Parts: sequence; C-alpha cells; structure tokens
Amino acid sequence: MIIVVKPKTSKEELTKLIDNIKEVGLNPVEFEGEERTVIHVLGEVRNDTEAHFKSIRCVEKVVRIVRPYKLASREHHSHTTIVKVGDVSIGNSDFIVIAGPCSVESESQIMEAAEMLKKLGVKIMRASAFKPRTSPYDFQGLGIEGLKLLKKVRAKTGLLVETEVMDVRDVPIAAEYVDLLRVGARNMQNYDLLKELGKVKKPVILKRGISATINEFIMAAEYLLYHGNKNVIFCERGIRTFENSYRNTLDLGAVALLKKLTHLPVIVDPSHAAGNRELIPPLSRAAVAAGADGLLVEAHPNPEKALSDAAQSLYPEQLDELLKGLKPVCEAVGKKLLLH
Amino acid sequence: MIIVVKPKTSKEELTKLIDNIKEVGLNPVEFEGEERTVIHVLGEVRNDTEAHFKSIRCVEKVVRIVRPYKLASREHHSHTTIVKVGDVSIGNSDFIVIAGPCSVESESQIMEAAEMLKKLGVKIMRASAFKPRTSPYDFQGLGIEGLKLLKKVRAKTGLLVETEVMDVRDVPIAAEYVDLLRVGARNMQNYDLLKELGKVKKPVILKRGISATINEFIMAAEYLLYHGNKNVIFCERGIRTFENSYRNTLDLGAVALLKKLTHLPVIVDPSHAAGNRELIPPLSRAAVAAGADGLLVEAHPNPEKALSDAAQSLYPEQLDELLKGLKPVCEAVGKKLLLH
Amino acid sequence: MIIVVKPKTSKEELTKLIDNIKEVGLNPVEFEGEERTVIHVLGEVRNDTEAHFKSIRCVEKVVRIVRPYKLASREHHSHTTIVKVGDVSIGNSDFIVIAGPCSVESESQIMEAAEMLKKLGVKIMRASAFKPRTSPYDFQGLGIEGLKLLKKVRAKTGLLVETEVMDVRDVPIAAEYVDLLRVGARNMQNYDLLKELGKVKKPVILKRGISATINEFIMAAEYLLYHGNKNVIFCERGIRTFENSYRNTLDLGAVALLKKLTHLPVIVDPSHAAGNRELIPPLSRAAVAAGADGLLVEAHPNPEKALSDAAQSLYPEQLDELLKGLKPVCEAVGKKLLLH
Amino acid sequence: MIIVVKPKTSKEELTKLIDNIKEVGLNPVEFEGEERTVIHVLGEVRNDTEAHFKSIRCVEKVVRIVRPYKLASREHHSHTTIVKVGDVSIGNSDFIVIAGPCSVESESQIMEAAEMLKKLGVKIMRASAFKPRTSPYDFQGLGIEGLKLLKKVRAKTGLLVETEVMDVRDVPIAAEYVDLLRVGARNMQNYDLLKELGKVKKPVILKRGISATINEFIMAAEYLLYHGNKNVIFCERGIRTFENSYRNTLDLGAVALLKKLTHLPVIVDPSHAAGNRELIPPLSRAAVAAGADGLLVEAHPNPEKALSDAAQSLYPEQLDELLKGLKPVCEAVGKKLLLH
Repeated sequence: MIIVVKPKTSKEELTKLIDNIKEVGLNPVEFEGEERTVIHVLGEVRNDTEAHFKSIRCVEKVVRIVRPYKLASREHHSHTTIVKVGDVSIGNSDFIVIAGPCSVESESQIMEAAEMLKKLGVKIMRASAFKPRTSPYDFQGLGIEGLKLLKKVRAKTGLLVETEVMDVRDVPIAAEYVDLLRVGARNMQNYDLLKELGKVKKPVILKRGISATINEFIMAAEYLLYHGNKNVIFCERGIRTFENSYRNTLDLGAVALLKKLTHLPVIVDPSHAAGNRELIPPLSRAAVAAGADGLLVEAHPNPEKALSDAAQSLYPEQLDELLKGLKPVCEAVGKKLLLH
Repeated sequence: MIIVVKPKTSKEELTKLIDNIKEVGLNPVEFEGEERTVIHVLGEVRNDTEAHFKSIRCVEKVVRIVRPYKLASREHHSHTTIVKVGDVSIGNSDFIVIAGPCSVESESQIMEAAEMLKKLGVKIMRASAFKPRTSPYDFQGLGIEGLKLLKKVRAKTGLLVETEVMDVRDVPIAAEYVDLLRVGARNMQNYDLLKELGKVKKPVILKRGISATINEFIMAAEYLLYHGNKNVIFCERGIRTFENSYRNTLDLGAVALLKKLTHLPVIVDPSHAAGNRELIPPLSRAAVAAGADGLLVEAHPNPEKALSDAAQSLYPEQLDELLKGLKPVCEAVGKKLLLH
Repeated sequence: MIIVVKPKTSKEELTKLIDNIKEVGLNPVEFEGEERTVIHVLGEVRNDTEAHFKSIRCVEKVVRIVRPYKLASREHHSHTTIVKVGDVSIGNSDFIVIAGPCSVESESQIMEAAEMLKKLGVKIMRASAFKPRTSPYDFQGLGIEGLKLLKKVRAKTGLLVETEVMDVRDVPIAAEYVDLLRVGARNMQNYDLLKELGKVKKPVILKRGISATINEFIMAAEYLLYHGNKNVIFCERGIRTFENSYRNTLDLGAVALLKKLTHLPVIVDPSHAAGNRELIPPLSRAAVAAGADGLLVEAHPNPEKALSDAAQSLYPEQLDELLKGLKPVCEAVGKKLLLH
Repeated sequence: MIIVVKPKTSKEELTKLIDNIKEVGLNPVEFEGEERTVIHVLGEVRNDTEAHFKSIRCVEKVVRIVRPYKLASREHHSHTTIVKVGDVSIGNSDFIVIAGPCSVESESQIMEAAEMLKKLGVKIMRASAFKPRTSPYDFQGLGIEGLKLLKKVRAKTGLLVETEVMDVRDVPIAAEYVDLLRVGARNMQNYDLLKELGKVKKPVILKRGISATINEFIMAAEYLLYHGNKNVIFCERGIRTFENSYRNTLDLGAVALLKKLTHLPVIVDPSHAAGNRELIPPLSRAAVAAGADGLLVEAHPNPEKALSDAAQSLYPEQLDELLKGLKPVCEAVGKKLLLH
C-alpha cells in the first residue's frame, strides 16, 4: 500500500500517521518526493486498513499495490480450476451449453423443455424455481414445487439441472434437488447468501451484478471460496450502461480479464444481455471467440407461452441453429462444443 | 399498452396477435398508420403481460402507457404519507437528521456516539449491527450483539435507533430491537427480504440500489407496500456512473421526481454518495434545497478509529457545523430543521 | 408518433392540442383509453416536431413509432453498402484489417511501420497526423507534415493510408493526401466537421462517441450521408461505463445491431476499447464472431518508443500472431481475412 | 509518479526500465516491497510520460501522484478567479442568472425574450445562433444572422449577450458580436476550438461533456488557459448515466469539487440536465446550495412555439417564480442574487 500525504502537512501530523501505521502492525517507509511525501506501507493490508488510512485528515490518496483477493487469484494459485457437474467438466477445453426456459412453469412445460434439450444434445438444463421479479404483481415462481419438478426431469431424462437460489433459507433444499446452483445478478453482493452457499457441496454459477466491477465480481467469488465452496463459475451477463437499445451491454472484455486474473471458469449469458432473440447468436459466437468456457442461454419449447423473459427465449429451431453456428467457432479457437 | 407491429407482417400473423390479446382478457383496438400498424390494448397490464407481447415475433415495440406501480403512486393516492418514528414525523414540514457511526463497534463507542448526537440535538441514531462488506476479510459487524447495544442506547439516552437488516432470518429480531429498519443499496432488489419486511410493524428506509432506475426504486417500495408495510421512506444515496472522483454520483433529480411521482417521504444519504467528508456539507445543503425530507449521515466520535467507512464519517465538530449550515437553508425552502 | 395526454386535461386544452397538430400539417386521430387519452399523429415527424409536442403542458409522453434516420436505414434501403478504398472492399465477405501506429511521429518511424505492415500483408495503414489530446502538454501531432509523410508511404509501399481529421479547415487537404478519413470518438457529434466531410469524395470511418447511443451514432452517419458522402463505415470502439479495469467497454451488441438496422459496414477498434495489449486478441476474435467487417488496430514497430497510446499498441510479433488467430475465426463465420 | 513492476520481472528487464526512466530525464528510486517492486519517479511527468511507462511490458501499474493540470489548479494558484462580463462579476459573492431561449429564432422572438428578461431583472441573455442538432433534419440555427440579432438586442436593451460557438471559423466573428462565448457539451474536447478560443478576449463558458470526468473537464479548461484565455467559467449540465427518467443526471458533487480543486467560477445549467420544466426549480435551488456561482437557464416568451428544446424552456411566469425562490436560498448560503 502507498499513502500519499497532503501538501503542507505538519511534522507532527506526519509523525502521528507514521506511528499509527506501526500501531496496526504495518511497516512504514517514508519517501519525500518533490511535491508530495509518500509512505510505503509493508505488510498485509485489508480493505478495512485501506479505508482507515483514507480517513486520516492529512492523507490525500491511498493506493493498493496488490489486489484484495487471494483465493480466486491466478497469481496465488497457478492451477486452472475445472468444475465438475455430474460427468460434465467446465473450464477445460470443452465448451458447455447450459440451456432451458427462464422458469419452471409446470410439469408439462418443463418436460417438454427437457425433451427439446435432450434432442439437441444439451447436457445441462437451466430453469428457475425461485424468481426475482421487479414487480410484485408478476409470476413469482413455483418455489419448492419447481425444485421437485427439476428432480423429476433429471430422473426421467438424465439431464443435469441448474437453478437459481435467492433466499438463504432455500439453500440446503435447493442444493439437495439440483446439480448446479446459480446466484442471480441482483444477489451477487447478498453476502449472507454467499456465505450459505459457501457451505454446500454443489457448484455455484455466480452471475455478475448489473453494475458490479470486475473487482467486486471477483470479491464475491472470494466469499464463496473463503466460506468453503471451491466450485465457482463466473457468469458475465451484461452490465448496465447508458445504452438502452438492448437490455444490457455484454462485456466480453470481462471474460478475457477474468480468465487472466483468476483460475476459475467463465461462462456467458447472452440472453439477459441481449434481452431479445436476434442478438443472441452473434453475441454467443463472440463469447466463444473471447475465450468463454460455456454459455447459459434461455430457450423455451414455446416462447410465446412463457411466463417470464419470453422475448429473450430462443425457439427450439433457433437453439438448434445457434448450436450449429457455435461448433466451427469453438473449433477455430481450439475448443470442442460438448453435446452428446 | 400500445403494440407496434413490424412492417411486412402478414394478415394471418396480425389476426393471431389480435386473438392472443383477447385470449388474455384484454381488448385490442387496431390502428393502421402510414408506416406501421399499431394496436391499442385496453385493460389491466402487468410487467408479465408486456414481456409476453414483446416476445411475439411480429411485434416491433411495446409501449406502456400507465406506470407499473399503484400503491406508491401519487396519481392513485392523493395524500402525502407521513412516517412516524417514535415522536418524530418524516414527510411533513420538519427536516429530519438521522446521524451516527457506520457500525456498532463496541459499547463504549456506541455510547460515546449517542452522547455526541444527543448533545447536538439529533433525535435518531443510525448504526449498523449487520454489515455488508465487499471483502470477506473485513469487519462483518457485531450482529445481534450490536442490536442489543442499540436497545441499550435507546434506554439510556432516549435516542431513537435505526439499523440495517440484510438477512431474512434477522428481520423479526431487528424489528423488535430498533425503531427504524434500513434496506441497504445492495439489497434493494432482494425480494425475499422486502417481503419479510412487508410483514413487520416498524418503518423502513429503502436505499436506492447503486444502479437502480427511479422506476425500479419505486417498484421495490411497491413490494414493501404490497406485502403490508405502509411506512416506507426512500433514500437517495448516489448512483454508480463513470465518474470516479467521488464514491457515487448523488442524484438530486431523483429526490424531486420521487416527491412528484409518489406520496412517500424521501431522504438523502450524502455520506455514501460523497465517500469523503469534504463534499458532505455542500451536498447536504443541496439535498435540503432539492426538497428532501431529511438526511442520513455518518458521524463518529472518533472517525480515525472507526472500523468501517471512516473516510466519510464526520467528526463531531463537523456534524455540529453541518447542522448549523442546514438551518438557514431549511428555512429558505419553508422547512424546519428538527433538533431538540 | 403517439402523444399520451396527462390525466385531468380539460376539453379545451385537448382541443387546442388537436388543433395545433393540424396546424403543423399532421393528422391527429384521438383515442380514449381507460386511464389516458392517446393521440395518433399521422404524417412525417422530425425530432423538432417531437420536441415541440413534448413541450406542451398537457402532454405526458411522446412516443416515436418510426426511427429518425432514413438514409442510413436498412428498412428504407434494402441493399448492403460496400465501401471501396482503393482496391479494397469493406462490407462484403472480406474481413479487413486496418493497422498501424497511433500517430505519425517521424519519417523513419512511419516507414518502419509501413514495412512491418507490408510484410504481414496488411493493406491499409492507420496513423494520425492530427491528434486530439486530453492534455495541452502532450504531443499534438505533426499536422500537415504528417499528411505528407503518409502520402510518401503510399507512394513508396503501395499501402493505402488512413488518418483522422479534427478541424474543418483540414478536411480538403486531408482528403487529398489520404485514402480513408476518420472521425474520432470525440468528434462524432462535431456537426460542422460532419458537414464538411459530407462534401468530400473520400470514404469516412465514423468512430462511436464514448457515450453515444446507437441511435445517435446512426444519426451522425445520417449527417454524412445527407451532406453527400455515401461511403461511411461505422467503427465501434468501446463505450464509457462504470468499469475501469479497461479503458472502455467494447460493445459488440452494437456491431450486431448496426448490421441489422443499417446497410453500412461496421468495423471494430479493439485497441481503444482495451487500452492494453493483452485484451486485444480475444476482443478481436470476438469482433469477427459478432459479425464485424474489419478491425482498426494499433501496432507499432517499437511500442515502447511510441509518442502516444503506447500501452495499447501491438508489437510486430503480436500483430502477426493476432492475424494468424483471426484467420480460422473468419472462416468459421463465413468470412475471408483479406491479406495479400 | 510511481511505477509498480510485475512480479517475476527479471533483473535485466528491471535495469532496462530504470535506465529508460533516466534517459527521459527523470529520477528513479527503487523500492523493493514484499510482493512487488515499486519505483518512485521524481521529476516533471506529463500524460505522455505516464502512457509511455504504462506501455513497457514489465510494468503492472503506473500511479500519478500529482494532478495533470497546473494553470487551473487551486494548489498552484491560491487566488479565486472572478470573471468580468460587462459590469457583471462571476465568481464573487454575487449569484448570476444567465437566461433566455435555446436559439435565436427571429428578430421578434429574440426581442420579446429580451423584454421578458429585462423586466425580471436578468442581466445576461443566452441564445444560440449556431445549433448542434442530433438530426440533420432539424432547425440548424440562424448563424451569423443570429449573431447580428444578438448585437441588436444588446444595443436596444442593454442586456449582455451570450452564445455558443461550434466551428473554429466562427470564433472571431462571434467574439466580436457577443459578450460571453459558450463551448457546448459536445465540443468540450474539440481541441481546435479550444485553441481558437484561447486566443480571443471574451470570456468563455465551458460546458461539461455528457460523459466527461471532472479531470477531463479541468483539462479542457487548462487548454483554454494555456492558449491564452484566463476567463473561463465551468458549467455543470448533467452527465449521461443509466437513468433515463430525465435527460441527464445533474452532478452537484462536481460543483463542490471544482470549487475545491480549481480557482475558476462554476455555474449550473439545470435545463439540459432536467430536460423538462418541472425539475428545474428544485435543481436550481440545489445548485445554489451546493455552492454554484450562477445559473444558465432556458426560458422563452412562448415555449410552445420554440424551435428547439421547448420542453425544458421555462414560461415567463415560471422564470419569475424561479428567481423569487432562489433569493432566500442564495441568502441562506451567503450569496446575493444579482438582479437589477
């Protein structure tokens, strides 16, 4: 950490600052520049510590030298994490497609969706039993009933199933019913939820908050890792910007950067970024080319009957076409599209 | 609702769309323009319904005519809500200051803070027992121990106490211990938490998510109202923008607009917006002038010893000065600064 | 255009509004909904007209049905524009790479850069003679001297040359010296410059302003087309968002959407988006996969000696590697990487 | 400047970097931390220099210690600049209102506007002769004819007149016809225009670009100062964010920060920020309370007939009311509303 001292700081204040650094167990090395005095601070620094020194009146600026995460960092962990979901591996040279409807709506709908996916070779089905909805007047999901239907799907079709969990109280039961859990964008910084998910044995997809920086995104993964869950998959799903021609702005630079800074797999959700079907194929291909390990994409046997996110759900024939278009791009970047 | 149909839509598709509108219980009135066919849809429309029609292939655009919230809307409720917290009224001509440290850190710290506030005439103390922290390595709050200390403060000093609640499981106990609950910016769209808070009898301060639109902000209040809690106070606390000279960009247009669109009180948190002390006084005065009903401001008996948000906590003498500066501005806009 | 009238509007005001619509030559059709009166307005509407009706006190909302651009619109022009630069065609199935240093710095530097490009098969060299610099203390470009050096490069190597123009007074001379002109992001809405460029015969690359919406971007192209220059190439180069891990956030959804809404070619500048070399290869591959027609990329024979944008300039061997990596991705999406 | 070196950098690379720092005339002091080597660089650093060192492969991060502007900086110039426009002083304890229509539309309109302003005591009239318009199909301003009308207004009414200049070629004539020049938000980084305005004797209002950081805003002022014009007035006018309930988000933190970092006056344009009349009064009062030196506000004798920005133009009676509401707020913060 580096502390820049305000010009015209008195000797006494400076001494007090230096003493304070020592008090908290760190080691200050003073350096007098031409326009500012700068103090190097040696020792382990937390966000707390940084904030503390920012608060001192004679301090102009505090600069962290080392990033605040450790467990997620490639610098500290040279291996590449491969997350196992059933017999599927995420993070190696396979390119994974997780597809399905936005929500579990009914037994017939979810079975029909599963058949559609099975036929196209998709191995993991997504579908939300719990739904975060902007309006209290909208469909709120089937809840535990939905989880049971997902379990039934798995038993009947052999598909692996993935679902979102929102409420800390639902974590244990969801972990029991499905293969892969998801933290939605709105809950990326719901720390109690992250802590609870840290304790379960199922892997977790962590979606980026719509206005989360990469740093905050990695810190949220750090929570999961710190609380005991090593199987974390990042999911870039678009960020909120001034542009409103689409629902969100897909940030593929994040994919490349996360692969560089961390050892965890990264997938992309083009559906929530686009918010409408037509942009999903080009964005999906771009995600592959940017280095993503997989896709999380919405597809519905009958989008016009969907109870949520209908406009961004692919028709069965569109999903088929999407997969066909992804194959050569995967190969062009040395990946293999995993379909059975 | 208005539906704009894509050019070159076939007669059959159009008929199917019209039939579909009728099927869901709405009433379509077709209107053929020069470049587009437009359908007026009469009847009650939910976000769900809007999304459904957006998903139909021949639909170019869907425009909502009426806003999606009702309980929070001034259009539907001509009264102005005044929220009572003990003997304090928020939303009338009084201007309220809620001040205090970021966190409850220890009995001596919180008592000292309470004495400072009492001396300056502040009637409600803020202090978080539960802390949402970006890093798992930082101080996470005292939890229920903190709630107990807040109760002790109230008993000893007569101050009203306010605290944040993050975990659905903590709602009932927090509601028992404090006078006023707070939903933090990161939890504005934590719908399970909002539902739980809908059920309690204590008023709730709802902070704006750092990237929440005004519409989403009102919809979050709508959740609280819909689930039974009529005592909701909006809190504008800055939004995330490209500008990084301060922690967040305080959006005072939101204050003026919320007062116009809804019947609920609006307060402003200049501390989290500014992120550093020096900008708090001008932003606080601006908040008054923009029409806010109160402030939520961080002040600490000894900021340099604070365990969180130290840089944005006012020193006791700065809080004193702030209050003195607010008084004439309150009067200039017809408000009375409530201090006892 | 649709006009939504405020609730509780009097008959007289409504009649006045209707009359006003007729006065400006448009045709109003009134429609009484349950909660609002809505007026359909038939006839040609400009931004002006829209703004005018928004200003009327009894108007709540104005909704445009048809987009405000015509010449750039694919709806009105079913062909696909292919822009010719010398013997290179942009907008067909070829994928074009325009590469080179940020600035023209000296004869030896620019000749060395040209040799590097020639060797790698690049056909168009970029290099700025005029430089928009955030600081008045930085290198401001060689000006007309730089244009002359570019002409020399072309004469000597056969490379086509591209440069930015900033000042209206420089347009004619720049158009004379180079093959392809560029409007920088900061000047996307410099309308006098666009008008001047509308008059010249050379094709123009129009870079997206860092906070320009897609709609504004297309309107800027509309200026060029309207003032007489039909050879316009869009260049997506990243937008400004809250994320500061990279210089800008590359928005590849824009590429897909521009290809859909307009008939003009779209290229991508990954260098300014990334701001550092390491992200350029994945973002470039993603641009191809998203459907771009080409790249505008910074490369320097010796980046560490560059006078501007050094950190985002590729080393010669990095450019070589980039091109090799692009080839299979181009083929995977049915394009051919144009190198000679 | 501080340079953080990447981990695992070889001795040779480090030596080369150190030598390079010396070569460009700076003085490196090496400092070996626990996780990184850090180099302090003493001597005068430009943006150029910073960028250069960022480009070196073994460099992880470069941190500037001192801000990049000098002439605009309060640190280097302890006085407070007061800009004289005729007999009006901007930047002292007077609060100035510059009001008028968006554009000069005709002699009768501008004269009527002038009469309105005169009657209310406003001393400076704003009105654009040159208009930057998003659409080429909209009203583009009267040009030099407009300037002549402004001169006529001044001769007839004694009002001081202010107008925007967009094209470098119009600077000398505009400077001759009006008392105060304005750089619009779209041209804040039109450096050729800034250079031209540096040479004239008339004061300049510099509007903040819709996505300009405070730092870029100050650097644009630095251009004007550097090129010879000392009479620069900042104008905060809202920034582009994700929020679209209003045209732009007014950033009053910028006002407070600019007053702290620079010695130049700061005014606020609430009209372009709000984009609709109703938010202008609260935002104007907030601007006063935040410490602004004046307002730039749109008002029209007959907004419904205005050719541009009609929805955000105040009616005469609204301007009257606004001024009445500002008076007590000015007094509450120790300012005097200047009206004659």
